[in-house]
Amino acid sequence: MNVRLYNAKILTMEKHRPIFEGEVWVKNEKIVYVADQKELEADWNPAGVPRINWDIQLDCEGNLLMPGFKNAHTHSAMTFLRSYADDLPLDQWLKEKIFPMEARLTPEDIYELTRLAVLEYLTSGITSIFDMYVNPGAVAEACMDTGMRCVLVPGLNDFVSSPEQVEEEYVRWNKCGPLISYQLGFHAEYTCSKELLCQVSGLAHRHRAPVYTHMAETAREVEECRARYGMTPAVFLDSLGMFEFGGGGFHCVHMTPEDMNVFRMRRLHVITNPASNLKLASGIAPIAEFEKRKIPVAIGTDGPASNNCLDMFREMFLVAGLSKVREQNAACVSAERVLRMATVHGAKAMRLGRSDTLTKGKYADMILIDLHQPNMQPLNNIVGNLVYSGSKSNVRMTMIQGKILYKDGSFWIGESPEHIYRRCNVILQRMLSE
Amino acid sequence: MNVRLYNAKILTMEKHRPIFEGEVWVKNEKIVYVADQKELEADWNPAGVPRINWDIQLDCEGNLLMPGFKNAHTHSAMTFLRSYADDLPLDQWLKEKIFPMEARLTPEDIYELTRLAVLEYLTSGITSIFDMYVNPGAVAEACMDTGMRCVLVPGLNDFVSSPEQVEEEYVRWNKCGPLISYQLGFHAEYTCSKELLCQVSGLAHRHRAPVYTHMAETAREVEECRARYGMTPAVFLDSLGMFEFGGGGFHCVHMTPEDMNVFRMRRLHVITNPASNLKLASGIAPIAEFEKRKIPVAIGTDGPASNNCLDMFREMFLVAGLSKVREQNAACVSAERVLRMATVHGAKAMRLGRSDTLTKGKYADMILIDLHQPNMQPLNNIVGNLVYSGSKSNVRMTMIQGKILYKDGSFWIGESPEHIYRRCNVILQRMLSE
Repeated sequence: MNVRLYNAKILTMEKHRPIFEGEVWVKNEKIVYVADQKELEADWNPAGVPRINWDIQLDCEGNLLMPGFKNAHTHSAMTFLRSYADDLPLDQWLKEKIFPMEARLTPEDIYELTRLAVLEYLTSGITSIFDMYVNPGAVAEACMDTGMRCVLVPGLNDFVSSPEQVEEEYVRWNKCGPLISYQLGFHAEYTCSKELLCQVSGLAHRHRAPVYTHMAETAREVEECRARYGMTPAVFLDSLGMFEFGGGGFHCVHMTPEDMNVFRMRRLHVITNPASNLKLASGIAPIAEFEKRKIPVAIGTDGPASNNCLDMFREMFLVAGLSKVREQNAACVSAERVLRMATVHGAKAMRLGRSDTLTKGKYADMILIDLHQPNMQPLNNIVGNLVYSGSKSNVRMTMIQGKILYKDGSFWIGESPEHIYRRCNVILQRMLSE
Repeated sequence: MNVRLYNAKILTMEKHRPIFEGEVWVKNEKIVYVADQKELEADWNPAGVPRINWDIQLDCEGNLLMPGFKNAHTHSAMTFLRSYADDLPLDQWLKEKIFPMEARLTPEDIYELTRLAVLEYLTSGITSIFDMYVNPGAVAEACMDTGMRCVLVPGLNDFVSSPEQVEEEYVRWNKCGPLISYQLGFHAEYTCSKELLCQVSGLAHRHRAPVYTHMAETAREVEECRARYGMTPAVFLDSLGMFEFGGGGFHCVHMTPEDMNVFRMRRLHVITNPASNLKLASGIAPIAEFEKRKIPVAIGTDGPASNNCLDMFREMFLVAGLSKVREQNAACVSAERVLRMATVHGAKAMRLGRSDTLTKGKYADMILIDLHQPNMQPLNNIVGNLVYSGSKSNVRMTMIQGKILYKDGSFWIGESPEHIYRRCNVILQRMLSE
């Protein structure tokens, strides 16, 4: 498919490049041309006709083309637990409500529930997800079938999966095409024995690969780790050689200066999940501190059972707003910084360097933001509007790998939304009655 | 206009009435019938044909009809300052950026900028606003022309308006029809002399009327009031007899137990503005404390210069989420409580008892929430979904006073959105160049 997107405001998210008016051309899965009006006039052939046979020519009507959001931490299949166990603290929520329900999931359930999440990602302009779940294969199938770009990370713990299975998945899912990749990881320090963690560290060394895990989400987790090992999770895991080849931590709410040193030394990524941290009363992450120490921050929605929605606009506002109130400083963590976290920093954390910006040669993962809506007016400061007043309702189009998967409220993911809703409701009813 | 809304899930927000399936009938500006399927079958005439000539029969397709949201604190016309002065603390933001710009506004500007805000309210299912601004007349005109229900409250302070003007407005705007009403108020303790405050208190006594004001928004405000009068704002204002007939405080972030006693004794309403309090780094209001003391809480967006969007879904999530993290208790301030704050408690704070619930005889202020979207699925817990995962994109229709003003992305407010956008951008450009 060759797609010409014209009459657009363009925010490439390349460093120091301001918004300009122009066109983006897509050939099959890649961006082949990004140009402002002047470049266009210089580049076009004398007749002024593009040199490509277009399948689609989309008039962007002066709206904003930008890279899609990178949701750097989620558990997509947990859609079935949305609003099922609200208003509970993390520990009780996880052990009494979530784990027992998850034990009843089949791979077919996970496939279907992930497709429901993909629908929502698309409505929020999310073009890549970093997904941790118990059956990565079912998640991968759902993403390949719908067209979502997905980085898998295993939910390995003492009860689920094994280092052998993780290694097998690592090899398999890193060679099945550009939409899917796989990073090493495990659920969390508190659900894994030291022996298991050493095995994961062994995998990291064998494959010279980064490792990702839940880290310092609650104060209790940090305390318990201290009681067990005399160290915080970051320091303890690092002492096992876990982060020799990088990686990152999901949540990172309760971090000591020593933890931050580990992150800086090992070039680890913080992946913050502010809505989930509020809803489970886990705390407010020290984003301004990370920024000060040049620790890269990406943003994730976390799973829909703890958030409960999959909306990067909500997360962006929260990253900025919560930092300001935490530091008692309205000037800290600006809109510009937050937008970078939600896009290029996310791509870096997920090792998606080929779909991070709107640049010639990159995969065409982009979204069209409707500026002709009241919450985007006046057009004084578009980046400010995106972060502070943007909403799902502004997403007019979501394109992944050159394919338009969502446009003006309709989906092209190989299945009708109603069909997916029906199946997910059937799954939920079955689980509730089991 | 006679409108039949059928095939709906209905949440009337009457106490203890769960969601049911049925119909709502509207005749001119009022609800004339709310019935579940059983009542319908019993009530309908033998031929099964409704006894009203319908102008519109709307198939709600199983979606949710509920009362519109009550935005209990805003400054609508500040749309022109959206993303103009982000990332600044309240004091600097107000004195260096906002006040100088506001001084340049004409009544025509305020009219146009308020219409822009109305567009956004409608997209978020907001059917009533409690609007404080320097020229209430221009706001009222904009609301009457667009069809928005508006409770005006004056921004009276040492530099703007006067007690005489407020009294004149109070009389005028309380007799101009059901869409507009007017409550006594002033900007804040810190912008009014004691003499002026005593005059406002005098007005309250003369009209036996409640009084509303910004209160305890920042720690500094409270400190400075203490330095001036040896009392917190709530205690000081109460000592002037200000709240003899009730009223309420906007923000109420930094409240002492004594302040809360004043609120309980005087039956004052707290109107919380969580997004604004984050963005200006003002703090997190003690909502769970208010709830414990049976102080009624309503929710406002605050103005678009400090939020920056006018979205009740964002505010609802924040009221719940911030309370949980503040109290370190994920169980506090449930979705059910928050939804009541955003609807019936708002109506009570604004004295809009005739448009608070979906009940026969009440004004038809209601919204249709799209449940056929991924963020509302599965349908396990609709109230949980509304508060924790709802979004502007779920608002399919907004009706005020029996009129459909917004439906499926289109507006019926007597003017095209593009026209309003253009004018507002012209106003902004003029102000920036002055």
